[in-house]
Amino acid sequence: MTPARTLDREEPSYFGAGPALLPTDVLQQAAYDLLSYEGDAIGIGEISHRSKPATAVIDETKKNLKTLLNVPDNYEIFFLQGGGTGGFSAIVYNMMAHYAKKTGKKGKAAYAVTGAWSAKAFEEAQRLGFDAYAVANTKKDNYGDIPPYSEWGPIQEDTAYLWVCDNETVNGNEFSDIPGPEYLPQDVPLIADTSSNILSKRVDVSKYGAIMAGAQKNIGIAGLTIYIVRKDLLDQASDAELRKLDVALSPIAWSFPLVIKNNSAYNTIPLFTCEILKLVTRKLIAEGGIEEIEKINERKAKILYGALESQASFYKLPVFNQNARSRMNVVFKTPSEELDAQFVKEADAKGLKGLKGHRSVGGIRASIYNAVSLQSVEQLADFVVAFAKANS
Amino acid sequence: MTPARTLDREEPSYFGAGPALLPTDVLQQAAYDLLSYEGDAIGIGEISHRSKPATAVIDETKKNLKTLLNVPDNYEIFFLQGGGTGGFSAIVYNMMAHYAKKTGKKGKAAYAVTGAWSAKAFEEAQRLGFDAYAVANTKKDNYGDIPPYSEWGPIQEDTAYLWVCDNETVNGNEFSDIPGPEYLPQDVPLIADTSSNILSKRVDVSKYGAIMAGAQKNIGIAGLTIYIVRKDLLDQASDAELRKLDVALSPIAWSFPLVIKNNSAYNTIPLFTCEILKLVTRKLIAEGGIEEIEKINERKAKILYGALESQASFYKLPVFNQNARSRMNVVFKTPSEELDAQFVKEADAKGLKGLKGHRSVGGIRASIYNAVSLQSVEQLADFVVAFAKANS
Ligand SMILES: Cc1ncc(COP(=O)(O)O)c(C=O)c1O
Ligand SMILES: Cc1ncc(COP(=O)(O)O)c(C=O)c1O
Repeated sequence: MTPARTLDREEPSYFGAGPALLPTDVLQQAAYDLLSYEGDAIGIGEISHRSKPATAVIDETKKNLKTLLNVPDNYEIFFLQGGGTGGFSAIVYNMMAHYAKKTGKKGKAAYAVTGAWSAKAFEEAQRLGFDAYAVANTKKDNYGDIPPYSEWGPIQEDTAYLWVCDNETVNGNEFSDIPGPEYLPQDVPLIADTSSNILSKRVDVSKYGAIMAGAQKNIGIAGLTIYIVRKDLLDQASDAELRKLDVALSPIAWSFPLVIKNNSAYNTIPLFTCEILKLVTRKLIAEGGIEEIEKINERKAKILYGALESQASFYKLPVFNQNARSRMNVVFKTPSEELDAQFVKEADAKGLKGLKGHRSVGGIRASIYNAVSLQSVEQLADFVVAFAKANS
Repeated sequence: MTPARTLDREEPSYFGAGPALLPTDVLQQAAYDLLSYEGDAIGIGEISHRSKPATAVIDETKKNLKTLLNVPDNYEIFFLQGGGTGGFSAIVYNMMAHYAKKTGKKGKAAYAVTGAWSAKAFEEAQRLGFDAYAVANTKKDNYGDIPPYSEWGPIQEDTAYLWVCDNETVNGNEFSDIPGPEYLPQDVPLIADTSSNILSKRVDVSKYGAIMAGAQKNIGIAGLTIYIVRKDLLDQASDAELRKLDVALSPIAWSFPLVIKNNSAYNTIPLFTCEILKLVTRKLIAEGGIEEIEKINERKAKILYGALESQASFYKLPVFNQNARSRMNVVFKTPSEELDAQFVKEADAKGLKGLKGHRSVGGIRASIYNAVSLQSVEQLADFVVAFAKANS
């Protein structure tokens, strides 16, 4: 082994969509913690997940999330392995177990299909044998818009929840508000996949039944998924009742009530990943909380979209409705695939990395998550303008 | 943040059962990789799981495992999130999907219940609605023995697989051989949970249908589970067929064929965890492979059990059959709970850490995984003798 011999690095300008850039000082602290945790002889990845220091890491991470997102007391915060994709399954299992308890019936599940990730979540619910239906599906518009709720299909009787993907990482659209009681019956909980925009903006958690987010974009490295679930939704029918109703059971490792009962350590939690979440959330609080980061994120998005719009005859934005454009994943195209590739290559040579679009969409994608600095975005915006001028 | 300012550490003498000790030089390299991977501006946790360097990490880890365990070509090696507990579910889903394809029927599952972990695996298969039965159950003997196969109950017709836990981490027993054709019909694959002894000893992989192991004991940190599965067992009935047969489907993130098709990156693999697996396996190869580490592990176990047996009137070993004693997790008790606690406390003060027994069993447990040095074990053995002499 020939290790690099320093924990210093030049600040990267990296726009990858996930896993994504993390603050350098967080990674440095995590690197030390890997060898020796809080002065102990061993590192954070080597200690028991039920030890006191492990519990303290989990508890602080939960507390920081509660502070940052202003999570009301009637919500539980917990962590699962399995990623966002695991969450597609975990949510439908657990929400249907609750619906069975509440009504004695097998429920239906409503999905707003507004991009690649909500499409996958919808598919998974159907695949697992649940009665899932789409209230909206914008695939024919290449997910270029989020239509107004007044145009969505009705919520059917016996619907256990409505699923939305708050920010579609691949397609670059983001909800600017959430369905209110004029669309969504009050007893149908709203579930949001916020994998790619959690902690990027203020959110009124009390409006949601549950929020799910993979860690590896705005919050940490891959390996943990964050759940924030309203407590009354955790009351579930027994396994026997579920089998009788033909409701598929969650694998035990994803049983929400069991995981909560064990403070996210029913089985071995990836504690090093949680330590990174702890450090990231701690840093966000120290730097002024969500209000501050939201302001910076707004500015970053404004600068980048502004640069693209200033060259509107050169760049195409697949998300045609401005209101639906993501503040996290900015997706755009030049006039040709060749120029797209050239853009990515020239940007890379200038130190602006990770800009290639998702393979299913093509073009260019700049993910400007919390850890991507204003300065990086300004450099990219300058390059956006210069590239258009040079190639028009 | 007040980071520790060094990646050096005194070599710990740590006997925790999992997560567990890792080699210091591996953690040091991983710490550097976290900031900057192979001279790149960003770290291994921040890059795309489908990028070239990510694929190289996954591929080398697979290759190293193949080399170390001498895995035949007709086996697939892959990784899932979800831990060992996730594996209890993933195996039954996927093996039943194969059995349905092979026979058009819903299969049964046989479990040898020889400790806390095989008991949990058995329970999970039943909970998920599968027809699982125990061919052995040594709970009444507090899992103090692994009875000969001639005393196990018969393998029933329509059995899709036989599950064993090769090393019971909590109870401290380990198989010294595996059931041959005189007990196990050739067309019933043997599945082994090797979470706490993988890479500790030579294994004839060709005798198994599948091997599963959580990473966080002998191989790495929590967050990944290793699977080695014979290729013919990966042929599965379609989702529609499974629904017709009332066979529960695996959540999509744990579908073996899909994960393999995507080289363990169907969804975001925790790449940093995989990097640690890569470094651990690379180091093992450099140090002479499984043959070498097995010799050292045998010596370590001999020294520690020898010390305990030399004080046989003082220490009780719950695993009464010597042949069934684990070479990884050495479980023992002093004459009283008070003395157990005193043992742990005095050992700790001497720098011998992590010796408290599992809460369900009590007493003392010394886990002497690959990363625990001969020297640490010798120190512990000396203390074992001294403590007995001082307290008899
Ligand atoms: C919005 C969203 N949901 C879900 C996922 C799936 O996450 P994972 O790869 O952890 O399964 C992603 C991944 O990129 C995502 O962006
Ligand atoms: C033999 C064995 N199997 C399974 C498990 C469960 O692993 P996890 O905690 O990753 O779910 C363990 C955990 O200690 C174990 O020792």
